[in-house]
Amino acid sequence: MTEWFIGIDLGGTLIRGIRTDGEGNKAARAQCHTLPEEGAEAVLKRMVDIINEVCAGVEMDSVAGIGVGAPGPIDHEGRIHNPPNLPGWPADLSITGALGKLFQPPSFIGNDANLAAMGEHRFGSGRGVDDLIYVTVSTGIGGGIISGGRLLVGGQGYAAEVGHQVLLPGGPICGCGKAGHLEALASGTAIAREARAALESGPTSLILEMAGTVENISAKTVGLAAMEGDPFALELVNRAAMYIGLGLVNLIHILEPSRILIGGGVSKMGDILLDPVRKTVNEQIMSPVYEGIEILPASLGEDVGLLGAVSLVLSELQ
Amino acid sequence: MTEWFIGIDLGGTLIRGIRTDGEGNKAARAQCHTLPEEGAEAVLKRMVDIINEVCAGVEMDSVAGIGVGAPGPIDHEGRIHNPPNLPGWPADLSITGALGKLFQPPSFIGNDANLAAMGEHRFGSGRGVDDLIYVTVSTGIGGGIISGGRLLVGGQGYAAEVGHQVLLPGGPICGCGKAGHLEALASGTAIAREARAALESGPTSLILEMAGTVENISAKTVGLAAMEGDPFALELVNRAAMYIGLGLVNLIHILEPSRILIGGGVSKMGDILLDPVRKTVNEQIMSPVYEGIEILPASLGEDVGLLGAVSLVLSELQ
Repeated sequence: MTEWFIGIDLGGTLIRGIRTDGEGNKAARAQCHTLPEEGAEAVLKRMVDIINEVCAGVEMDSVAGIGVGAPGPIDHEGRIHNPPNLPGWPADLSITGALGKLFQPPSFIGNDANLAAMGEHRFGSGRGVDDLIYVTVSTGIGGGIISGGRLLVGGQGYAAEVGHQVLLPGGPICGCGKAGHLEALASGTAIAREARAALESGPTSLILEMAGTVENISAKTVGLAAMEGDPFALELVNRAAMYIGLGLVNLIHILEPSRILIGGGVSKMGDILLDPVRKTVNEQIMSPVYEGIEILPASLGEDVGLLGAVSLVLSELQ
Repeated sequence: MTEWFIGIDLGGTLIRGIRTDGEGNKAARAQCHTLPEEGAEAVLKRMVDIINEVCAGVEMDSVAGIGVGAPGPIDHEGRIHNPPNLPGWPADLSITGALGKLFQPPSFIGNDANLAAMGEHRFGSGRGVDDLIYVTVSTGIGGGIISGGRLLVGGQGYAAEVGHQVLLPGGPICGCGKAGHLEALASGTAIAREARAALESGPTSLILEMAGTVENISAKTVGLAAMEGDPFALELVNRAAMYIGLGLVNLIHILEPSRILIGGGVSKMGDILLDPVRKTVNEQIMSPVYEGIEILPASLGEDVGLLGAVSLVLSELQ
C-alpha cells in the first residue's frame, strides 16, 4: 500500500494542496481562494476541504501526515504571529492543533520560506547538499537555511529572515519598518519603487512604455525591459543584484553553505539577475576558502511550498 | 579514576594548556611562547611539550582526549589555512594528524572563536542555552554559533565569521581586504585607527593625554578615556557599539539565538560598550518576536579558549 503525504500551502491569495508519495510524486492536487477577509475560521474550513479533496478515494490510514506551509513567523506550537498576508489572524490559533482534532494523521506546520528550503533540499536543486540556503526574491525577500542537513529554526522558530539584514544603515525603509534592509534595497517591491520614483520625471525607458503608466510599473515590467536590453532597466536590476550579492556574502561568511538557491518571482529574470549577483559575490567574499560556493536557480517553481510541506512531514516522521 | 581532558590554545603569542576533569575543573596548567617565526615544526614541538607538562603525573590511559583551539579557518582534516597570527603555517599540516602519531588519546581541533562559543555554552554564561552566539571583539571580530545545541560549522568548517559582514558598502577596508565589514568598523583596530586619524590634527581628548603620542593610541586607551567620561572617546565607543549592534541585529534575524555573549579584549569596557550595543539592537530588531534576546558579557575570560578546547573533546566523545 502506498503511503501518502499531504502538503498544504496557505498563501494570502490561494490555499493549495497536493498528495504525494514518499518520493514527492504528485497523485492529486486542489486549490481554492484563501479569502482571508472572511476570517480565520472560514480559512481553516477551506483548508480542511482542500485536505479532504486531495485525500478523496484514499484511506486515511494510508496518509502518513499533513504538512502546512504558512507565511510569517510561526512558533513551535503552530501559531502564526502577524502574518503579513493574513491580516487579523488570531495569535492564539494553532493550525496544527485544529487539524489534529479533525484528522487522524499527525500534522506539522512551518514558515513557507523555511519549507521551500526543505523542499529544494529533498526534491529540488539542493539534493545531496547538507549546507544549503534558499533565498526567495519576490514581493519581499525571505529564506530558509539547512545547516548540517537540518533546518535551522532558531530559539523559537523565527530564524532565517535573510531579507532583514541591514546592508545600508539609514537606507530606505523596509516593509518591516526598519531602515536599510536587503528587502528594502532589492525585493520586487524595492525595484518597482525605484523605477517609479525615477521615471516620474526622469529618463525615458522601455519600462514606462511597457507599463503604460508610472503606477503600473512592477518588478516584472523592469525585468522584461531589462531582458530587452533597456539601459535604465538593466541599471535597476544590477543595483538590486549588487545588494543581493552583498546579502549572500554575509550569509556565506556567517553560515558557509555549499550551495545557495535563488527562487521567487523576481528570480524568473534568470541570469540577467543571477550573473551580477555572482559577480558581486566573487568580488566580495574572502578568499580563498569561500570560493566555489554555487549560486543556482531554485528548481521546484510554483510547487516549492507544497513539496516543502511534504518534506516537513517526511523529516518529522523520519 | 578521574577521566582527564586536555585543552590547548594555540595563539600567535602563547601556547597555553590545561588539564581538567569532565566538569572543567582545572588540575594543571602550563604555557610557553609560540615563537611562530621559528616555523611550524618548532611550534608543534612546543605544543607537545605543553601537553606532556599538563599530563605530568597522570596515566595517559586516564586522558580521554586532547582539544586544540587555533586561529584562522580550519578544515575538517585539522589543517589551518593562512592563520593571520601564524604566518607561513604550512597548508598541508594536520595538527590532529601529528598529535595522533604521538599520543594515544584522540585529538580534535577547532577554530578558537568557535571553541570559545562551545566553552561558554558548556561552562560559562551560555549554559543551558541551545541557540547561542558568542562574539569576540578584539583586534578583529570573530565568533562562534551554537544552533539547536550544536556548533554550526558550515560546509567545510569555515562558518561563523561574524565580523566579516558588510554593514557599510564602500566603507573602510577590513583586515581581510574587503570593504565595509563590521570588523573594519568596530574592532579594537578600527577604534584605534579612528582615534589616531582624528587626534592627528583634531579635538583635544584625554585619549591623547593617556597615550602620550598619537602612535601609542590603542582601543584600550580609548576605553579608559571613555570610562573617565572623555566626550570624544565616548563618541568613538558609541560609534563602534552602533555598528556592533547592527551586526547583532543581522545575526538575530538570520539565526534567532536566545542569547548573545560578548567577549574579547574590547569587551572589557563593560556596559560603556554593551549599553549602546543593546540600545541599537532594541531600536533595530523587528518587533515583537525578536524581543527579549539577552546580550551579556562572556564569563570565562582568558580561559575561554582552553575550556572551549575541553568542550570540543567532551562533545566529540559524547
